[in-house]
Amino acid sequence: MKKISFIFCFLFSAGLMNAEDGYRLWLRYDKIDDPVLLQQYRKQINSIYFDVYFNEPSPTFEIAKKELIGGLQGLLDKKINEGKDFSSYQLIINKKRSEIVQTIDFGSENLGSEGFKIISVRRIHNKWGGGVNNVIVITANTDAGILYGVFNFLRLIQTHQNISNLNIVSVPKIQNRMVDHWDNLNRTVERGYAGISIWNWHELPDYIDQRYIDYARANASIGINGTVLTNVNANALILRKEYLVKVKALADVFRPYNIKVYLTARFSAPIETGGLKTADPLDAGVQNWWKQKANEIYQLIPDFGGFLVKANSEGQPGPQSYGRSHADGANMLADAVAPHNGIVMWRAFVYDVRPQQGNENFDSTKEITPIASSDRFKQAYNEFKPLDGKFRKNVVIQVKNGPIDFQPREPFSPLFGAMPQTPLAMELQLTQEYLGQGTHLVYEAPLFKEVLDADTYANGKGSTIAKVIDGSLDNYSITTIAAVANIGSERNWTNHPFGQANWYAYGRLAWDHDLSAAQIAEEWIRQTFTNHKDAVGSIKKIMLASREAVVNYMTPLGLHHIMQGGHHYGPAPWQNNLGRADWNPVYYHRADSAGIGFDRTAAGSNALSQYAAEVQKQFENIHNCPEEFLLWFHHVPWTFKMRSEKTLWQELCSKYQSGVDTVRWMQQQWNHLKNIDEERYQQVKMFLTIQEKEAEWWRNACLLYFQTFSKMPFPSNQEKPGQPLDYYKSLKFPFAPGNGGNN
Amino acid sequence: MKKISFIFCFLFSAGLMNAEDGYRLWLRYDKIDDPVLLQQYRKQINSIYFDVYFNEPSPTFEIAKKELIGGLQGLLDKKINEGKDFSSYQLIINKKRSEIVQTIDFGSENLGSEGFKIISVRRIHNKWGGGVNNVIVITANTDAGILYGVFNFLRLIQTHQNISNLNIVSVPKIQNRMVDHWDNLNRTVERGYAGISIWNWHELPDYIDQRYIDYARANASIGINGTVLTNVNANALILRKEYLVKVKALADVFRPYNIKVYLTARFSAPIETGGLKTADPLDAGVQNWWKQKANEIYQLIPDFGGFLVKANSEGQPGPQSYGRSHADGANMLADAVAPHNGIVMWRAFVYDVRPQQGNENFDSTKEITPIASSDRFKQAYNEFKPLDGKFRKNVVIQVKNGPIDFQPREPFSPLFGAMPQTPLAMELQLTQEYLGQGTHLVYEAPLFKEVLDADTYANGKGSTIAKVIDGSLDNYSITTIAAVANIGSERNWTNHPFGQANWYAYGRLAWDHDLSAAQIAEEWIRQTFTNHKDAVGSIKKIMLASREAVVNYMTPLGLHHIMQGGHHYGPAPWQNNLGRADWNPVYYHRADSAGIGFDRTAAGSNALSQYAAEVQKQFENIHNCPEEFLLWFHHVPWTFKMRSEKTLWQELCSKYQSGVDTVRWMQQQWNHLKNIDEERYQQVKMFLTIQEKEAEWWRNACLLYFQTFSKMPFPSNQEKPGQPLDYYKSLKFPFAPGNGGNN
Repeated sequence: MKKISFIFCFLFSAGLMNAEDGYRLWLRYDKIDDPVLLQQYRKQINSIYFDVYFNEPSPTFEIAKKELIGGLQGLLDKKINEGKDFSSYQLIINKKRSEIVQTIDFGSENLGSEGFKIISVRRIHNKWGGGVNNVIVITANTDAGILYGVFNFLRLIQTHQNISNLNIVSVPKIQNRMVDHWDNLNRTVERGYAGISIWNWHELPDYIDQRYIDYARANASIGINGTVLTNVNANALILRKEYLVKVKALADVFRPYNIKVYLTARFSAPIETGGLKTADPLDAGVQNWWKQKANEIYQLIPDFGGFLVKANSEGQPGPQSYGRSHADGANMLADAVAPHNGIVMWRAFVYDVRPQQGNENFDSTKEITPIASSDRFKQAYNEFKPLDGKFRKNVVIQVKNGPIDFQPREPFSPLFGAMPQTPLAMELQLTQEYLGQGTHLVYEAPLFKEVLDADTYANGKGSTIAKVIDGSLDNYSITTIAAVANIGSERNWTNHPFGQANWYAYGRLAWDHDLSAAQIAEEWIRQTFTNHKDAVGSIKKIMLASREAVVNYMTPLGLHHIMQGGHHYGPAPWQNNLGRADWNPVYYHRADSAGIGFDRTAAGSNALSQYAAEVQKQFENIHNCPEEFLLWFHHVPWTFKMRSEKTLWQELCSKYQSGVDTVRWMQQQWNHLKNIDEERYQQVKMFLTIQEKEAEWWRNACLLYFQTFSKMPFPSNQEKPGQPLDYYKSLKFPFAPGNGGNN
Repeated sequence: MKKISFIFCFLFSAGLMNAEDGYRLWLRYDKIDDPVLLQQYRKQINSIYFDVYFNEPSPTFEIAKKELIGGLQGLLDKKINEGKDFSSYQLIINKKRSEIVQTIDFGSENLGSEGFKIISVRRIHNKWGGGVNNVIVITANTDAGILYGVFNFLRLIQTHQNISNLNIVSVPKIQNRMVDHWDNLNRTVERGYAGISIWNWHELPDYIDQRYIDYARANASIGINGTVLTNVNANALILRKEYLVKVKALADVFRPYNIKVYLTARFSAPIETGGLKTADPLDAGVQNWWKQKANEIYQLIPDFGGFLVKANSEGQPGPQSYGRSHADGANMLADAVAPHNGIVMWRAFVYDVRPQQGNENFDSTKEITPIASSDRFKQAYNEFKPLDGKFRKNVVIQVKNGPIDFQPREPFSPLFGAMPQTPLAMELQLTQEYLGQGTHLVYEAPLFKEVLDADTYANGKGSTIAKVIDGSLDNYSITTIAAVANIGSERNWTNHPFGQANWYAYGRLAWDHDLSAAQIAEEWIRQTFTNHKDAVGSIKKIMLASREAVVNYMTPLGLHHIMQGGHHYGPAPWQNNLGRADWNPVYYHRADSAGIGFDRTAAGSNALSQYAAEVQKQFENIHNCPEEFLLWFHHVPWTFKMRSEKTLWQELCSKYQSGVDTVRWMQQQWNHLKNIDEERYQQVKMFLTIQEKEAEWWRNACLLYFQTFSKMPFPSNQEKPGQPLDYYKSLKFPFAPGNGGNN
């Protein structure tokens, strides 16, 4: 490893290629720009003592050490010496069991295998009788804990926190904190808006891109410890030897950062790459093929995490193609990886129709259009609830936060709380498939928190989804949370500079779901942009307003799934020509001359019945259903009187307008910002221009279309659409990004 | 514009995301690391006086100014002041006609619209009688000339040249110095190995990526003044209004850098986007459609450069589909852009068979397999030579350097010198489609020079291709050179750090084809990596050896086109199953029990007859044909005695081995390098490992296959292939990059 060296370099203005390009994410470590604070920190940290009682520091420990020294040297703009022994005003890094530090009360917390503690100590003695004053100790049971502690400590300094009286104990609440890449082997990224996949399969395993290292480091800095490399719409080729050696190369890079690698398993792989005639999970040959495949993988990657599977959904093969259940399929894979301590994450995002066994004409590879009244909302619950208790111990069922598909606002999936005997994972989406894609500023933490804090009432009041996921409600032995990555090959990783905030917030919440959206926003802003108080305040206000803005200008009052088909870019509430009924916007909004919205009460699809009684009560009555969920559960007359005293139609208009207005307010806030770098300032400004245009587009297209049913005029204070409805219907975007491509 | 500011930053080792990532190309402007030289430069440049007699400096002038100040501040690590008046030890920037500088003899050179002059002046007087000593003047007729002069001056300092007695006059020899992007609208890049297209069409025109600006700057720094944004396998959508406003946004960015924008025109666009029934170039409606389209474009982009067209080649539509000639097609487009001073670059890369007019079953959209004996080598000449003199004045015929397709070594295209009445452009390929793609270190300047220096004998000895292209041989009124870009979204632009050298070398040669490959390599290394003498020497040796290495390990002795079909990655001399005879390697090498090679003498296809008699003489006799072209022109017995006294078979083995050996020598040289940054050092090292593996793969696969014909043993000192032939035949790469995708 090269020694850390200092090289002065010059940052010119943007045109000279040295500007703030966003690549460094929240790990910039630039010199503290508050001179008083800088002096104080410099006094408090004179040197670092790495209290390694063991002989060979692990790669993880080496990484923690390099990060700490490099980070502090950047932040404090001074050479940080490695102490040979204790001294005052020192940072001490040790493992809890170290014998050298005798007099520190480490407390009785169980830090587990990943937790850490950071404490300020007035005076300590060592075993030789010496003593020093005013040290800070970062301690943990493991090197991974040390690494997380180091990142936490650096975050304190990056965010200008007082480090005089530290007493931080931090242990992750969820075991498996995953990012899921929907990356195809040809480097296209399904629902990716930040360039192409950062995995360059063609050049692996011999070429190790610096990005792989920087990716692992960024994830480790926020506590993420698992990555699914490949798309859930899977290609079986990834399981072939020539690809597995590439996967191994990545696993070797990620391992020291405490990150495990997982792959998606295409259910039909035994046929496609194994040459078998069937993929029936009860077939002994198939079971054996997967066992051998697992052995092969674990020989290359001893800490391989396991498989993520999308089966019998949207055309993917699965056990139902053979008349078997999801449990049969998942258990077969689970048995294959169990000897190696692997897990299987089986997705509950299903909306295939059950195969018609015995029907000779049944084509298992094709989906069947369901009857519209069946309500896609209900399918995951209907298929999985009966299987509770039927899965192996190392199976996790992965459930999207809402019952449909990552809409700007959804009620929580009724599966949460409904499977006490089966570990459930929650799947969130960082990539903004339905939230303005690559160009809208939408801070997602409020959305995540809304779901985590939602009460399932499964075991009475307070049975929040957070408690389901972290296992505390039903004593799950495995706890998992996952999010679909928004990471791509763009220089700043996420295309929109604020996409980074969603990656960051997800990692922080996966570690500790008690953090607030505002708290996370603030620490992200301080690390990523600036610590200047006014700027922090303005940016935070923008972020916290942004999610409600996108709900309002896209899908207010409980509307959902009214975007264009395929690429999902832009509004198309009129669309009714896609292959399946439940791919079409008209299926979801059900606008007609009487009103708008999907009746999911007992009088309608009765999807509400899948919730606990207390939850049903919240939603079932049109007159006290929270208005943000109104059209999720009710078909509401255009003249229905809202709490504002407006009619539904007027309220709908007003909400769309307010979404646009909020974007304009965000623009104003941004335009007045000071103390941030020119390059990103301009980037966000340009993106906000796009966001404003597209918010107007959503408002105009949706209201003009819904007006054909309501037959009511726009409120007098409403901005009039610049174009007629036919114009918006005519817009086509054949090359909108993120729409798959062959995988 | 923001004021230039100095910010100190720290470069940590690679893991901390601040390393030398290659983004800055050859424009790094880091502080001069030779203290003596630094002192000297600091003394010689105290301030800069921008002698602007005009009132409003143009955007181009502002860019030159910013570049000069920023560059010098970086290189000299001192604040550079802008002088208010003349003073000694000053840099003076002025236009030649400036009245202020009275006493400088600017000489009588015609600097034209892009040339510049840099002179050291002992003493000058101004018109008020004052005088100052030891100034350097950068002067030109135009702001573009000033910009080029500034880049040249900065290059002198970056490469540690003496600036005491400067007298540099530099005028480009070729007018249109183009890079051609084979970029599709979905951002895939045909034959692109550096990520995806840097053009983010989806976010244009509202989002201006910093890369667009940095791209323009990089091109301007080497004198490139035109860019074709879209693939020659064109999509007509680019000509629609919604895309033209995006093109305009790019043109606006590039204009101040003296770079014009061009587009590819899909010949069938009048049908596809215009709703016409035909694209017949003699149809008045079609002619009018193109005229209107040109007007529309020029209204948005007044300095639009024109169209590049691939017609009736590889499935592209063209005039022959209507029984018209290339001249009919080109002239129609030329007439449309002529009122706006646009040009049409019409590609001579054609190998369709002439349409069978009058045959009712003729399907103009399909290609017809030609009879193998027709020899694709001859087709461009056969189609275009008869049309000499039939094109409009603003048509340029763009000819690839060789008759086939950018092979590691080709004889020059016989069209050069054969069309005295038609301006010919030469098309080179920077992206390494056939030269190891994204992972091989191959410096292409020796290849470019080999072609430029080749003598066509068109007007007797000395009728080099350089003279054809720069117009001096036949007095072309338009002169053009083009190269297919190797630029993509990768952080370092070209994937392999040495891909940058090819971009750089092309630009420099396009400006001045008299430069040597070694000279260009040296200046590139000094700017891009280091000025340390030993390192410069080693890297230069590697670069200069690399092109012959790739010839040897892929296609020695005149072999060509024996790579895998489709993606063109790796060897497949056995391939004989592709749709057209002349897509198959067996068509080109013609190995059989008697020997190997393509007989293009009078006894064979007689392609040689397309050259001037003197050139024919060089190649026609198997006994004195230069051996590097032997198998291009002759079918040679396996036992043929080579100049080395070896048999052809032995020589072939030896050449393949020597290609591998050179790569290993390159590795050794690289491994011993000092004084270059760690990140790129490791990158190149990893790539060289891949290059060695693939060189062995080429050698093994080709020799094992050819041995099935020669039936001769490998020489005793030859490394034996690690695998049998069937293994190499079995290798499949479904996701090898660069293979198009829908455009």
